Amino acid sequence: MLGSTHGTLTTHSRPARVVACGGPTPQAVHGAAGPVHAGGGPGAGGGRDGTGELDVSGRPLSAAVPDLDRFFRPRSVAVIGASDSEGRPHTGITRRLVDWAERVGARLHPVNPGRTSVFGLACHTSVSDLPEQVDLAVLLVADPLPVIEELADAEVKFAVAFAAGFAETGADGAAAQEWLAAAVARSGIRLLGPNTNLNAFETFREDLDGPAIALITQSGHQGRPVFALQELGIRLSHWAPTGNEADLETADFLSYFASRPEVGAIATYVEGLKDGRSFLLAADRAARNKVPVVAVKVGRTETGARTAASHTGKLTGADEVVDAAMRQFGVVRVDGLDELQDTAALLARARPPAAEGVAVYSISGGTGAHFADLATAAGLCLPTLGEDRQRELHQWIPDYLNVANPIDNGGHPVGDWRGRKIIDAILADPSVGVLICPITGPFPPMSDKLAQDLVDAAEQTDKLVCVVWGSPVGTEDAYRRTLLGSSRVATFRTFANCITAVRAHFEHHRFTASYRSPFDEAPRTPSPSARKAQALLRPGEQLSEHAGKQLLRAYGIRVPREQLVTSAAGAVRAAAQVGYPLVMKASGPRLAHKSELGLVRIGLTSASQVRDAYRELTDIARYEDVTLDGVLVCQLVEPGVEMVVGVTPDPLFGPTVTVGLGGVLVEVLRDTAVAVPPFGEDQARAALGRLRGRALLEGVRGAPPADTDALVEVMLRVQRMALELGDQLAELDINPLVVLPKGQGAVALDALAVCH
Amino acid sequence: MLGSTHGTLTTHSRPARVVACGGPTPQAVHGAAGPVHAGGGPGAGGGRDGTGELDVSGRPLSAAVPDLDRFFRPRSVAVIGASDSEGRPHTGITRRLVDWAERVGARLHPVNPGRTSVFGLACHTSVSDLPEQVDLAVLLVADPLPVIEELADAEVKFAVAFAAGFAETGADGAAAQEWLAAAVARSGIRLLGPNTNLNAFETFREDLDGPAIALITQSGHQGRPVFALQELGIRLSHWAPTGNEADLETADFLSYFASRPEVGAIATYVEGLKDGRSFLLAADRAARNKVPVVAVKVGRTETGARTAASHTGKLTGADEVVDAAMRQFGVVRVDGLDELQDTAALLARARPPAAEGVAVYSISGGTGAHFADLATAAGLCLPTLGEDRQRELHQWIPDYLNVANPIDNGGHPVGDWRGRKIIDAILADPSVGVLICPITGPFPPMSDKLAQDLVDAAEQTDKLVCVVWGSPVGTEDAYRRTLLGSSRVATFRTFANCITAVRAHFEHHRFTASYRSPFDEAPRTPSPSARKAQALLRPGEQLSEHAGKQLLRAYGIRVPREQLVTSAAGAVRAAAQVGYPLVMKASGPRLAHKSELGLVRIGLTSASQVRDAYRELTDIARYEDVTLDGVLVCQLVEPGVEMVVGVTPDPLFGPTVTVGLGGVLVEVLRDTAVAVPPFGEDQARAALGRLRGRALLEGVRGAPPADTDALVEVMLRVQRMALELGDQLAELDINPLVVLPKGQGAVALDALAVCH
Repeated sequence: MLGSTHGTLTTHSRPARVVACGGPTPQAVHGAAGPVHAGGGPGAGGGRDGTGELDVSGRPLSAAVPDLDRFFRPRSVAVIGASDSEGRPHTGITRRLVDWAERVGARLHPVNPGRTSVFGLACHTSVSDLPEQVDLAVLLVADPLPVIEELADAEVKFAVAFAAGFAETGADGAAAQEWLAAAVARSGIRLLGPNTNLNAFETFREDLDGPAIALITQSGHQGRPVFALQELGIRLSHWAPTGNEADLETADFLSYFASRPEVGAIATYVEGLKDGRSFLLAADRAARNKVPVVAVKVGRTETGARTAASHTGKLTGADEVVDAAMRQFGVVRVDGLDELQDTAALLARARPPAAEGVAVYSISGGTGAHFADLATAAGLCLPTLGEDRQRELHQWIPDYLNVANPIDNGGHPVGDWRGRKIIDAILADPSVGVLICPITGPFPPMSDKLAQDLVDAAEQTDKLVCVVWGSPVGTEDAYRRTLLGSSRVATFRTFANCITAVRAHFEHHRFTASYRSPFDEAPRTPSPSARKAQALLRPGEQLSEHAGKQLLRAYGIRVPREQLVTSAAGAVRAAAQVGYPLVMKASGPRLAHKSELGLVRIGLTSASQVRDAYRELTDIARYEDVTLDGVLVCQLVEPGVEMVVGVTPDPLFGPTVTVGLGGVLVEVLRDTAVAVPPFGEDQARAALGRLRGRALLEGVRGAPPADTDALVEVMLRVQRMALELGDQLAELDINPLVVLPKGQGAVALDALAVCH
Repeated sequence: MLGSTHGTLTTHSRPARVVACGGPTPQAVHGAAGPVHAGGGPGAGGGRDGTGELDVSGRPLSAAVPDLDRFFRPRSVAVIGASDSEGRPHTGITRRLVDWAERVGARLHPVNPGRTSVFGLACHTSVSDLPEQVDLAVLLVADPLPVIEELADAEVKFAVAFAAGFAETGADGAAAQEWLAAAVARSGIRLLGPNTNLNAFETFREDLDGPAIALITQSGHQGRPVFALQELGIRLSHWAPTGNEADLETADFLSYFASRPEVGAIATYVEGLKDGRSFLLAADRAARNKVPVVAVKVGRTETGARTAASHTGKLTGADEVVDAAMRQFGVVRVDGLDELQDTAALLARARPPAAEGVAVYSISGGTGAHFADLATAAGLCLPTLGEDRQRELHQWIPDYLNVANPIDNGGHPVGDWRGRKIIDAILADPSVGVLICPITGPFPPMSDKLAQDLVDAAEQTDKLVCVVWGSPVGTEDAYRRTLLGSSRVATFRTFANCITAVRAHFEHHRFTASYRSPFDEAPRTPSPSARKAQALLRPGEQLSEHAGKQLLRAYGIRVPREQLVTSAAGAVRAAAQVGYPLVMKASGPRLAHKSELGLVRIGLTSASQVRDAYRELTDIARYEDVTLDGVLVCQLVEPGVEMVVGVTPDPLFGPTVTVGLGGVLVEVLRDTAVAVPPFGEDQARAALGRLRGRALLEGVRGAPPADTDALVEVMLRVQRMALELGDQLAELDINPLVVLPKGQGAVALDALAVCH
């Protein structure tokens, strides 16, 4: 552990327990480096801003793309704490940096007051003695804080801090990290780390061509298999091990990579986000630039979230919110590192699909049936080939075999000239955008030739050619040399990963083709509704139903005709104005579960019923010791589809809008979807599309289709309210929102609003 | 194609178009061989019976385990149609059979009237000239039918027919196959095929130890990767390529393998089942013998089902029924061939778990968090290690790292003597049944030693040790030599497959530990209810609601008090007896959707309302031209959880019982589960547990828990009815069945019964 050896420049100038300095532990060399939640509330941070424009909630609407060219390709590098003494932990790291600098053609300057030379290079006493202005300083010292100011004086652009012992260790470490972050922010230097590792200084293969994968990981060990893709012929261009993200964060690298011409796709392993808004802005940039982003995000479960937090000191965020945010901005989320590799590799290299159809081609009818079954279940479309095409294929494939798609060649034709003809004929079909050939069992007389034909055909088409090499052995020549040797064929080892990647490929191109950035339309200034609404808020209180509905009305959300009355006579007068039949409900602050308490009467049709109901409701309230501000006399709204729409604050993303189907669906199945601001109409509709019970909106049992447009409009108005009222609104629940038949709107029957 | 070359013994003695004789096409050599649905109705077939005992529906209650020892290890083999002429398709097959016979020590006798010797072996003119009674005859001839009788005369025990052109080609082929099947059944010979291949004569590695995988496939190509597991050190003992299953079927091999001591698990690739009952009986045998069965079954989607059918001429069966059947009998269903391999390999070799807890151990906190997240999401249990154990681990692992589980060693300790100590300490914990070590990125100084320590530790424990080798490269020594070289460590390539296999391991042992065969309790003779019920059936008709309910009552299923009346006065008299408040409904044969037609009146409280309702209902019926057998005056049943319970006939399994949650859940989400007879109380409860909305039965929004026991009892009574009435009952739907609060029973409010 470096922590106990103490770097030469180390003084602990802050009140923090530093546990260990990142040395050649696996977590530093190729291991887990985790960032930390910056604190300061959602949306407060988010890197250094772009235009500085803010939305109505005070969150940035753009982020500058940091220019990291000189970080990844520095002309000169200083290594602070360099060593070449045998047995010192810094020595190995220094050695690797010296080698790396030589390879990339950077001048390397060791800095260490105790030495005159390190690995034959002149060693400098301090940063101020450096012989030139350097682009990048690598800090091997246990305490990077005191060095930051010196670096700033020397006009160093970038720094990397390996030291561990910060936010990942608890409250003391988090405080130390805040000191460091503040110093870095003052200095103007951009810092990677602390608690990062050598992954940024890996050597990338230069002999591979085509668009590359850029990699961002919050754990070095977890990024290693993606890096290893180079051994399978997949090009990588960058690796950013973001560490604790005291300054530079995942979002900064995302934005930067999304602007690099050599980057075909970004692969990222995320444990927690430093800030929700900065992540959205970076994902937005990638979406605008049509650069696919594939992410593994830990935190599906409470166990995962807790473990990740103890690993990196970072909030994983409510998983359904992170998930929704990723969907909205086109980030492809996968669960496994194998899926991350396979999907990123495909998306990096595949051209946009010419058609949405997938042709499945195999030497076995069983393989074709099995693959088609799984592909169709995953939503891929296997068009039936036209009769002309089938006739063409039957020139080379026996008549009794199925060539409609999947196409079963029976085996023999792949052994001769017919093999290539068949592939070309399938690729020529205008309904086919992707050809997938699953080769389950290798049988060299056939599969070797088949692999070569597929590689050759792929060279001469713009269409995507995928092969699944199903043998678990994986040392076969057809796989290692022929298939992996081609940058035009996407090779997989399992049906599932091929299907996941191809589906992501279609979805990415569909998504970016119709992408409209919600940031362009996000409100910048408060609407006139905001002032009206603010007048209704009561800090720290739960509003009465009546006040809650007025809040909705302020934002143009329809509520039933209703009057708040405080006497039986008043109720009868109100009833005449509201109109029969009607509903009466007790109304008061802090009053929930009205139905359970018997504080609602439905379907009243006469003055005498209204009078009786008033008396009963107020009696019950007295008996239950409930404070009322009166009794609501409300219009009885005709039936429709009952939904819930609500606002939930998220620690990473700020207020989010939840929509769900009411009644048993939301009670038992928690069938809800989240929309993360800023979202537009498209994203609101997409959220509705994720509801399992969405068919209810389309009309079931002969019911008419519901007014989805009105529902979407309510979601957008609720978003606006949530952004404008910000922290003042702790919680909002419209339950139920009755969505009437198409063209008739939506009415909020009840509203629960809690103020901060 | 052999079909055009004509085998020497070939005469087409049946009215069928033979498309091709199975020769060395890939579908025969290692390709897709597909069986065919035997026809004859579900449960009619099912191999040759065991005790011959039948259940009340006439389906067998046991099946004999065929003695296939001499099939897989014949002492002598005849090859009918053997050839050694260069360029003849039979020559290659003969060559492979000669080699195989030599390896397994079987005497091989070529039979071909045109030759005196084949590959130096004396060749015989006909079967009758064979020099000894042979165990197995391999039929290379295009038409196996004429040979069968000769084989029977020569007392041959087993035959394998490679010829294709049978049920997989359509109706003519299916007819030809029926001729063949009949001849085989008469002969007493057990036949594999037709349309099978050489996979039964593969060479298995003899140098691998431990329990083996036995493989059954309906496509040679699809079985190839499982067979290739031997190259990764996994032992295989048998491969049965079942072809068209004119005689021997998947179920026969399942039963046989489940009785072999060397078989640790059975892996099977299934496109369609010949017969549902024979499959259940075989799975039951495997469950009794605690032999795990892992299956890929094509047919998740309509596309998959259609393609598989056109490939093999076989019914895939309704997928939810096949799925339920597999669950009930403990068959582990997986989707991918990679999952089939990994799960079968683990289940074959792992001993029963000593505890249900999983410990996740890693050199990276990121890897541990990620794995724990996915494992927990999949339902695995990661117990928090006790404080003593954590203290013990902290002797070797720095204090700031998390060792509660997942256990993060930080990397360093694996490099020295501490590595093994840690592993042993984790394995010693009584809460830990399985240790999983995901090694995401190889880092030889650490991962090589770690792999060796895991292998060494696994040799000295009964507990299961799993490793995920996450590198996509897969040529590393630590993987190829150390890990794959151990039969005690289960090695995976992805987190997902490891989790799938470990979950299946726990589930298999839980399942077999509490398994009670439903065949032991299946009814053999009709109950007294059957005669009562049969009197109510009206062939070809849909029964009236009243008659349907009498059917239920015959089986002891509760229905509301009700009377069928044919006059207003009768209605008023009935009302007095049934008691107010009540419900009135029109009742008549072929009458569905009563509510939609306005033929139901709810909550009637007086004689005058009853009189009016009678008049209205009969008026509407007249107007809608609906024939009534009267009007039902029914007790109004108190509210409960509304369910549906029904009987649906399945072409493979016969009648099945469907249960679902009523209302919107069944309308919109099709939230139903199937129970396949024979099932007992446990399986009925398990079906309820699969309902997404099952929480409704437990009580939501303060509702009391429902009487699940009564619901299960209804399912069992409906099963009994379905089995006893058999084909006479085409369809039954109880909708709704109101399940009252615990202890109060369940009442069928409506019943729709259709007779055959």
